[in-house]
Amino acid sequence: MRTQVGIIGAGPAGLLLSHLLHLEGIESVVIESRSRVEIEATIRAGVLEQGTMDLLSKCGLGERMRREGALHRGFELAFEGGRHRIDLTELTGHAITVYAQHEVIKDLVAARVAAGSEPVFSVSDTSLDGLESERPSIRYTCDGEEHVLECDHIVGCDGFHGPSRAAIPEHLRSEYQRIYPFGWFGILVEAPPSSEELIYARHDRGFALISTRSPGVQRMYFQCDPSGSVENWSDDRIWSELHARVEAKDGWKLTEGKIFQKNIVGMRSFVCSTMRHGKLFLAGDAAHIVPPTGAKGMNLAVNDVRILSEAFKLLYATGSEAKLDAYPDDALKRVWRAEHFSWWMTSMLHRFDDATPFQQQLQVAELKYVASSRAASTALAENYVGMLAS
Amino acid sequence: MRTQVGIIGAGPAGLLLSHLLHLEGIESVVIESRSRVEIEATIRAGVLEQGTMDLLSKCGLGERMRREGALHRGFELAFEGGRHRIDLTELTGHAITVYAQHEVIKDLVAARVAAGSEPVFSVSDTSLDGLESERPSIRYTCDGEEHVLECDHIVGCDGFHGPSRAAIPEHLRSEYQRIYPFGWFGILVEAPPSSEELIYARHDRGFALISTRSPGVQRMYFQCDPSGSVENWSDDRIWSELHARVEAKDGWKLTEGKIFQKNIVGMRSFVCSTMRHGKLFLAGDAAHIVPPTGAKGMNLAVNDVRILSEAFKLLYATGSEAKLDAYPDDALKRVWRAEHFSWWMTSMLHRFDDATPFQQQLQVAELKYVASSRAASTALAENYVGMLAS
Repeated sequence: MRTQVGIIGAGPAGLLLSHLLHLEGIESVVIESRSRVEIEATIRAGVLEQGTMDLLSKCGLGERMRREGALHRGFELAFEGGRHRIDLTELTGHAITVYAQHEVIKDLVAARVAAGSEPVFSVSDTSLDGLESERPSIRYTCDGEEHVLECDHIVGCDGFHGPSRAAIPEHLRSEYQRIYPFGWFGILVEAPPSSEELIYARHDRGFALISTRSPGVQRMYFQCDPSGSVENWSDDRIWSELHARVEAKDGWKLTEGKIFQKNIVGMRSFVCSTMRHGKLFLAGDAAHIVPPTGAKGMNLAVNDVRILSEAFKLLYATGSEAKLDAYPDDALKRVWRAEHFSWWMTSMLHRFDDATPFQQQLQVAELKYVASSRAASTALAENYVGMLAS
Repeated sequence: MRTQVGIIGAGPAGLLLSHLLHLEGIESVVIESRSRVEIEATIRAGVLEQGTMDLLSKCGLGERMRREGALHRGFELAFEGGRHRIDLTELTGHAITVYAQHEVIKDLVAARVAAGSEPVFSVSDTSLDGLESERPSIRYTCDGEEHVLECDHIVGCDGFHGPSRAAIPEHLRSEYQRIYPFGWFGILVEAPPSSEELIYARHDRGFALISTRSPGVQRMYFQCDPSGSVENWSDDRIWSELHARVEAKDGWKLTEGKIFQKNIVGMRSFVCSTMRHGKLFLAGDAAHIVPPTGAKGMNLAVNDVRILSEAFKLLYATGSEAKLDAYPDDALKRVWRAEHFSWWMTSMLHRFDDATPFQQQLQVAELKYVASSRAASTALAENYVGMLAS
């Protein structure tokens, strides 16, 4: 079997790339180790930047997002018993949409299916060959049968643990990493929204985030021990922690409801700046991970494949590899900006057990400054909506 | 001997407070352990914020500062071989004046002498008594004779190592501190200015700062081992380090000259938030230290005594202690803002030997952002000129 662009991984990066290439008349095949049911049910982030919204709309995938997603023109910072609104639209002219990643995935899969180009699901034993040759290929097993997909180029969109990045010899990879000493405990709750906008809370007990999923389902997170177990967290214990962390002196109360999902995620910053190796390109989580505090993960993946799709368009239109050659540098500008921003939001809002009293005071001083200075609020807002002036 | 306000320390804080009180008809006595010659020759910082300039002008001390000081409307950030101007005036409407601290001190001493209220220099064995009584006093030795100065209130402007802060029982003091693992090597050079504006340089070898003192004398600094010795630094070694750290790809060269002073200073962040104890108030370095990167030290001292002078004015005009009671909270707002800013400038520009490659990349990413985003440049500029919008 042969295609122009072989894509490993049916997350937002792989599916969107396949869709964008299709619109340019470029052939691709997406293979995915999980089933369609699994990828459409995996709960992930849900904040779409303005640029992500614009791109999805432009490529015909914005209809349900606009109808079912919630446009947010601001969010709140809660600390020291007070709440401070960051007015994204007033500060930057832009906004974000809360629309869950698995909903984006459903829209993307439906578009691939409608185009007669359904991803190959539930594959196993994926490996990459000939990356430094003119005939790169992907080998995988599907329904017990071994397949070889020959490609002009391969794009690895298979996440942090996928085989693509691992196919680049280790001595050729430049990698940067930080593991945070805490995780996020996430819950899904049957309840109406507690707040019209997201609340990012800094508290001596640790960070908390009040988010929303739909009018009847809310998403909440709080900083926890990443090596903990959800079994140790009764509903009562969870609510008592959330109430303590997010409720301000103004009498506002968090609305409780039935908790129907609990999970713990670790927090990591990671960049593999070797985003190209021969005929292989890395995109999305395969190349970089951000802690979820800045809500940048999916948006970075979208930006990577936007650049790649333009590069492949140029290649197949003119034979020029100029944009493919420029891809790592082009993508990394946005990646490092988002890495810094995500680290900053994380550092400013989380409890660090080893922080000195001086560092704790600086954290509060920084939040007070961000909340009170228009310049600092704008810096936060322009990063959050992903629209940087320059 | 008896006075209304006893002031320990003839640095900028103590001398300016005495001057401001004098203008309000309030009596004070300043005592100082060093001689007049010493305090007028001690080389310290030299960046006056807009608010400091305004206050000195308003109280009649701005004439020589305006004539001999250099008004700077911007400075440069140098990193990764490039230079980026931060246009303070365009971003904030304000500027700073480079005018050495010992020149400010000369002007202040002259004003005290002219008013017939010369500080008592070269005292020793200073101690504070009765701070929690109605009759606080300062005991000191001068010319071999012991004196007791009875006061209504005492203000400790005697720096980090002075007796004032130490007179507050340790269990009552809330203190916050960070010692940095590096220092600044400072030189004074007979040479014309290399640059019209200050250059703050981040380099893999460490931080450097190109500053100016007068048309014929330049002040330069570079990050060094704080436990090092100036004897280990030949002129050649100093110049080679400075050239390597500050010169950009644009061909600009640092102008060398005769080095006539070398010193090494440590770097510390410190806050004693217990700025009042009974009849004792702390101001300036006695209460807080910032690393010099943000050029905030003298400006914070000036802000402290501005607030204190207004508080004493209210007290002697109406008997109300309301502003004295509010002094610690009022002063600490600005103190913590400056502590955070100074820590931030320091973190962004210095080499940390224990920084991971990820942290080094973040440092560069942050500088690129600050240089390219108007919001982030404005945040830096408004802190630097000390005029915060809110």
